[in-house]
Amino acid sequence: MSMQLNETHDPSLTSWVASANDAGSDFPIQNLPFGAFRRAGSAEAFRGGVAIGDQVLDLAALGAAATAFTDEARDALSLANRDSLNGLMAAGPAAWSALRLALSRLLRSGAEQLPQALVPQSNAEFTVPARIGDYTDFYTSIHHATTVGRLFRPDEPLLPNYKWVPIGYHGRASSIGVSGQSFPRPKGQTRPANGAAEPHFGPCRRLDYELEVGVFIGTGNADGDSIPVAEAEAHVFGLCLLNDWSARDLQAWEYQPLGPFLAKNFATTISPWIVTTEALAPYRAAWTRDAADPQPLPYLDYPALRDSGAFDIELEVLLRTAAMRDQNVPAAPLSRSNFRDGYWSVAQMVAHHTVNGCGLRPGDLLGSGTMSGPEPESAGSLLELSGGGKTSIMLPNGEQRTFLEDGDTVVLRGRAVRPGLPRIGFGEAAGTVLPAR
Amino acid sequence: MSMQLNETHDPSLTSWVASANDAGSDFPIQNLPFGAFRRAGSAEAFRGGVAIGDQVLDLAALGAAATAFTDEARDALSLANRDSLNGLMAAGPAAWSALRLALSRLLRSGAEQLPQALVPQSNAEFTVPARIGDYTDFYTSIHHATTVGRLFRPDEPLLPNYKWVPIGYHGRASSIGVSGQSFPRPKGQTRPANGAAEPHFGPCRRLDYELEVGVFIGTGNADGDSIPVAEAEAHVFGLCLLNDWSARDLQAWEYQPLGPFLAKNFATTISPWIVTTEALAPYRAAWTRDAADPQPLPYLDYPALRDSGAFDIELEVLLRTAAMRDQNVPAAPLSRSNFRDGYWSVAQMVAHHTVNGCGLRPGDLLGSGTMSGPEPESAGSLLELSGGGKTSIMLPNGEQRTFLEDGDTVVLRGRAVRPGLPRIGFGEAAGTVLPAR
Repeated sequence: MSMQLNETHDPSLTSWVASANDAGSDFPIQNLPFGAFRRAGSAEAFRGGVAIGDQVLDLAALGAAATAFTDEARDALSLANRDSLNGLMAAGPAAWSALRLALSRLLRSGAEQLPQALVPQSNAEFTVPARIGDYTDFYTSIHHATTVGRLFRPDEPLLPNYKWVPIGYHGRASSIGVSGQSFPRPKGQTRPANGAAEPHFGPCRRLDYELEVGVFIGTGNADGDSIPVAEAEAHVFGLCLLNDWSARDLQAWEYQPLGPFLAKNFATTISPWIVTTEALAPYRAAWTRDAADPQPLPYLDYPALRDSGAFDIELEVLLRTAAMRDQNVPAAPLSRSNFRDGYWSVAQMVAHHTVNGCGLRPGDLLGSGTMSGPEPESAGSLLELSGGGKTSIMLPNGEQRTFLEDGDTVVLRGRAVRPGLPRIGFGEAAGTVLPAR
Repeated sequence: MSMQLNETHDPSLTSWVASANDAGSDFPIQNLPFGAFRRAGSAEAFRGGVAIGDQVLDLAALGAAATAFTDEARDALSLANRDSLNGLMAAGPAAWSALRLALSRLLRSGAEQLPQALVPQSNAEFTVPARIGDYTDFYTSIHHATTVGRLFRPDEPLLPNYKWVPIGYHGRASSIGVSGQSFPRPKGQTRPANGAAEPHFGPCRRLDYELEVGVFIGTGNADGDSIPVAEAEAHVFGLCLLNDWSARDLQAWEYQPLGPFLAKNFATTISPWIVTTEALAPYRAAWTRDAADPQPLPYLDYPALRDSGAFDIELEVLLRTAAMRDQNVPAAPLSRSNFRDGYWSVAQMVAHHTVNGCGLRPGDLLGSGTMSGPEPESAGSLLELSGGGKTSIMLPNGEQRTFLEDGDTVVLRGRAVRPGLPRIGFGEAAGTVLPAR
């Protein structure tokens, strides 16, 4: 929140990794996102890496170059070169910042080049970058909540608790996969058809994506303690992209009274890269509400909220169908929105989650909920774009979709953009629907 | 399901651990439940143990006695003497059974006594016996669902999906603690009082317990695959007691539309002991439904369901208030029910959970949901016993309760009982409410 800019944010910095200096790259030297990787097809151990241009800097291969690091940076490096980033996440903001500064200096133009520590991203295989103990999904877009609510309750689209409570629920940790994940179309029960005595059973017929931002918890809190909202962002390691795949027909039948279950827990796809909150400091945005909206309760309010409580991150969904792959045509854009339009901030999610004493752990993942914007075309799901399945979406190659079909690949992208600054991006979170088993 | 009885179930067996032969013991030689323990107050590593009478058999201290084991039992032992039982759980029913047989022979009257491998339970400290990757809570008692539903929807107590879908939701893994757990009263938002513009914020005023049975998953399934219901119980390692502490006032305000969140995730207390499904084989019960209830869909139906789909386990809740501790009077019984009255069976929970391809992992925990029986006094929560907080419950020492007060300890107990057989029990799952922080 009160994150100061430092030399790692200097927009004039360039890297000896030439591809990092391309204006179109998601990974300039000002970004330095963390992930876990190995060489594709190898039996190597996964280890920490940092994206730079089209390369991965192998954090386990810095060798003597790390001897110039500060003690704090070297300690952080030793936590980051493991098969998951939980240790680094637990080390806290000072450690994250020390390592970021050391890596920025290591990768700058003029520093000694370390080609032996680079692996092309095209030759890397990624894994979920942390052991995720618990995964929580929020519902922070009022535009999504209103549009979806209208489909179920035309008279009362937004429930009375929405503007007071950052609504969330627990999701499934074991089915979270990294970009490249594929999964069979889920099977399950759906509501009895008109006149039918029994529910229908079979493959989902209304399979959807949800465009979300993921929040990786860094340092946790002791069970029974709450994290004050003004301190909440210091507990956040960074952000990623997250696709909360959803089976709408299963969901409509199962979700009362205890919420979504089989409709969501078969797969969740995240980007391999976690962009740190320090990297995002220059891309903070005002957190805005309508004048008629209530002020947050004190445990959800803090001085920096209105000025810089949000993150300005452009989000995008693309669809690549099997036919598009065959035709070798580009993926079709489906929706665009911006993370800054969330009704609840990242800090508010963390403070709310812990206000009852619930302990968060390093590596826990929070989802923002579907990030839909105020315009119809900025909806972050097919359920919204198709008006509840009533309207087909025309794709550039002549295909149509209301919901996802087998063979469809959904690609999420995200990038923070500000005039005069390099853009810093998240790469992709791509996932593919396979036929039902 | 088709579990055969074997020599470990022989009711005439006795143990050289004399306390195991007491008729009142939860832990005769026919039980042999698994847990993870160390000597209280020590810095020892936690390791696997088996309850026998008032002792723990230390599975890391069998030494030469294990040389007489079969290879399969010795392999299983090496997986069971660790700080969590996940390895043993993953090994599968043949391994579990081989180890059980070996331990039964080791502990029988006439076998060489191994006093050096015993630790008194009164001198043991327990931990959650598995690393729980994901925790799912079901809602399998139709009596609970009906009574609670009536409080919220007098016209439609049971929702249309209930008799078709084994309703469940994901809970919080990190706040699951073992018997002896204590936690501060959770704080949070509750519905605005009549006429108030804002929600109330403060310590929960309607804190409750829920009497449940926990199901520990043994072998899991590959992501994307389903576990057929007829094979489901082979994936279950065993059962425990589970208290799903619930903040009813937080729940009523937050739970729409995505289900319970802060109302449940601050604490969940389980018994230290997991009673294996093999130990419970002689205590199977018929699974019954009303004639008017629909037949389960095919993916939830299997031949053994009606004869022996249920487990006959008597469940009990006791309350020990701070005043009772001061007065040194016994804990007061609050409710009694039986696990056999569940509308959905353990096998149905597992089959439903995986029908969409969701992968279960060794050590995952499923809760049954509150086990309330058909009679009002067999309700498994204060919400039900107090008619939604309208009626006070008189305690034998003159105190009253509608919901829990600070200092209250709730104790769950459970035991399988059958005429002519020794009773086998679960010990206790006790937890204590501390004042809000």
